[in-house]
Amino acid sequence: MLEPESIIRLEGDCVVMLDQRRLPDEEVELVCRSATEVAEAIRSLAVRGAPAIGIAAAYGYALAAAREEDLDAAAQVLAAARPTAVNLEWALREMRAASDPTARARELHAEEVERCRRMSEQAAGLVGEGSRALTHCNTGALATGGVGTALGALREAWARGSLQNVFVDETRPLLQGARLTAWELEAEGIPHTVIADSAAGALLAAGEVDCVFVGADRIAANGDTANKVGTYPLAVLAARHDVPFYVVAPSSSVDLGVATGAEIPIEERDPGEVSSRFGAWNPAFDVTPAELISAIVTEHGIHRAPYVETLGAAVPA
Amino acid sequence: MLEPESIIRLEGDCVVMLDQRRLPDEEVELVCRSATEVAEAIRSLAVRGAPAIGIAAAYGYALAAAREEDLDAAAQVLAAARPTAVNLEWALREMRAASDPTARARELHAEEVERCRRMSEQAAGLVGEGSRALTHCNTGALATGGVGTALGALREAWARGSLQNVFVDETRPLLQGARLTAWELEAEGIPHTVIADSAAGALLAAGEVDCVFVGADRIAANGDTANKVGTYPLAVLAARHDVPFYVVAPSSSVDLGVATGAEIPIEERDPGEVSSRFGAWNPAFDVTPAELISAIVTEHGIHRAPYVETLGAAVPA
Repeated sequence: MLEPESIIRLEGDCVVMLDQRRLPDEEVELVCRSATEVAEAIRSLAVRGAPAIGIAAAYGYALAAAREEDLDAAAQVLAAARPTAVNLEWALREMRAASDPTARARELHAEEVERCRRMSEQAAGLVGEGSRALTHCNTGALATGGVGTALGALREAWARGSLQNVFVDETRPLLQGARLTAWELEAEGIPHTVIADSAAGALLAAGEVDCVFVGADRIAANGDTANKVGTYPLAVLAARHDVPFYVVAPSSSVDLGVATGAEIPIEERDPGEVSSRFGAWNPAFDVTPAELISAIVTEHGIHRAPYVETLGAAVPA
Repeated sequence: MLEPESIIRLEGDCVVMLDQRRLPDEEVELVCRSATEVAEAIRSLAVRGAPAIGIAAAYGYALAAAREEDLDAAAQVLAAARPTAVNLEWALREMRAASDPTARARELHAEEVERCRRMSEQAAGLVGEGSRALTHCNTGALATGGVGTALGALREAWARGSLQNVFVDETRPLLQGARLTAWELEAEGIPHTVIADSAAGALLAAGEVDCVFVGADRIAANGDTANKVGTYPLAVLAARHDVPFYVVAPSSSVDLGVATGAEIPIEERDPGEVSSRFGAWNPAFDVTPAELISAIVTEHGIHRAPYVETLGAAVPA
């Protein structure tokens, strides 16, 4: 298994991370020497996944503190790196309150590892015997610095013997599924099949999928969930075929400060990621309405609708 | 506009076609000297699109006839090139009945051009003033050797002033949308925006799409439609957002011999088109159930449900 510190760690006066842009072809580490360099690593997706960018921001903030730099400026540049995942803001809020930033950043990482472990164990119970799961994007060790969220649940289900196969949406335009999730599953020896995102409909229609597991970048108080673009179509298709659709995310991805998904800012990335020649529109995320979500699993347990009540009760405001 | 003979033509004892695998980077012609070479061009997608491969097969058959080759064998190799589009079988059936194969092949091409013109004019009437359309794969000149099916309708709507913009699904894994449709729209001066296939959900949810237009590779007697993989998810999303979903295809794509979509053979292509490193599943088509289709437009007119009656009445058995 990928160890948390192989994904990202504080080493002397640097943040060292596995450069996810170069996987699966090369396993290369990227060394960041300032909060600005960490922000650039987040922006350019050298590190991605809502929990992992929270940890990266915490380490970046700790670097700035160790160098006695302007911490307001450091927090601002880190928070601005990507707008949708609330974990960035959450981690920076935690860091600003810390008396020992280096120790607190390491602690936040350890806490995220523990949250992953707990939510994966909870969510694995939703995977029935012999299940074929479908997932989108990457929600494993690379995305969390721990065992993963949705992919952590599937890994735990595999360990328990209930999982048969994982269908992996390739996840255009940047192929986090085909590059990162397939790479993690191969490393874990878990059977997997990559599909074009658009083939999920045919797969579900053929009755080949028993459950869909995805992560989240931000969950509104009512359960509406922003996640990698393509998640919403999957949820619509899963509902049509009566296949349960589960969101697995740490409570640090729940934002009780936004009432519904309509308030979640959606990052639009460079159109060149989609087409280098023709005009394009490239939203990084979409919003899945709560009504399409069978359950949301956090480290606090399995939450069902009405989410405004169950999430509100479980997650500290 | 692309002239029919620039897409594909019989020239001396060769079939000459624009090699669609190399667009939009290079405009190169591929020269086929036998039915077997034409079959390979169809199989490898140098020419693709249900109507266009019907024409290619007709020209390939005419080549074999001119060379006095075994016509049963030629028809067999051509019919086996791709299994889903019924136009291949249809064109070969027409050719087998022809007394002058060369003249008949040219005539079939001319008839397809005329069918395209007529169905485009019919379907353009479905495009309301100021419409923003969404389309999938390529259904233009390249796919038909004429003005196109779904894209022909949008081109006609643009000429009439009712079309505002075309959103183009990139159409993984082979990017027929991002490579071919965007290239055709650019050539025609029609505003267009490429999106990742998985971004169609966010686009529809944002209310940015007024109508969806797609082609067909085979339409069953009940209206179930096999088309490029990713069409079915679009239809499900369009229904959810009350956006009309139109199929535009010549009657040569209607197969009254199959009762429902369940009987249509779906081609599975090389998994390497999806992932060169990990195991993959790569169906080329999916089936959209008739209930999700607002209308099917052929050269005979606009057909509405129940399709088993309206298609049956319009299309010669």
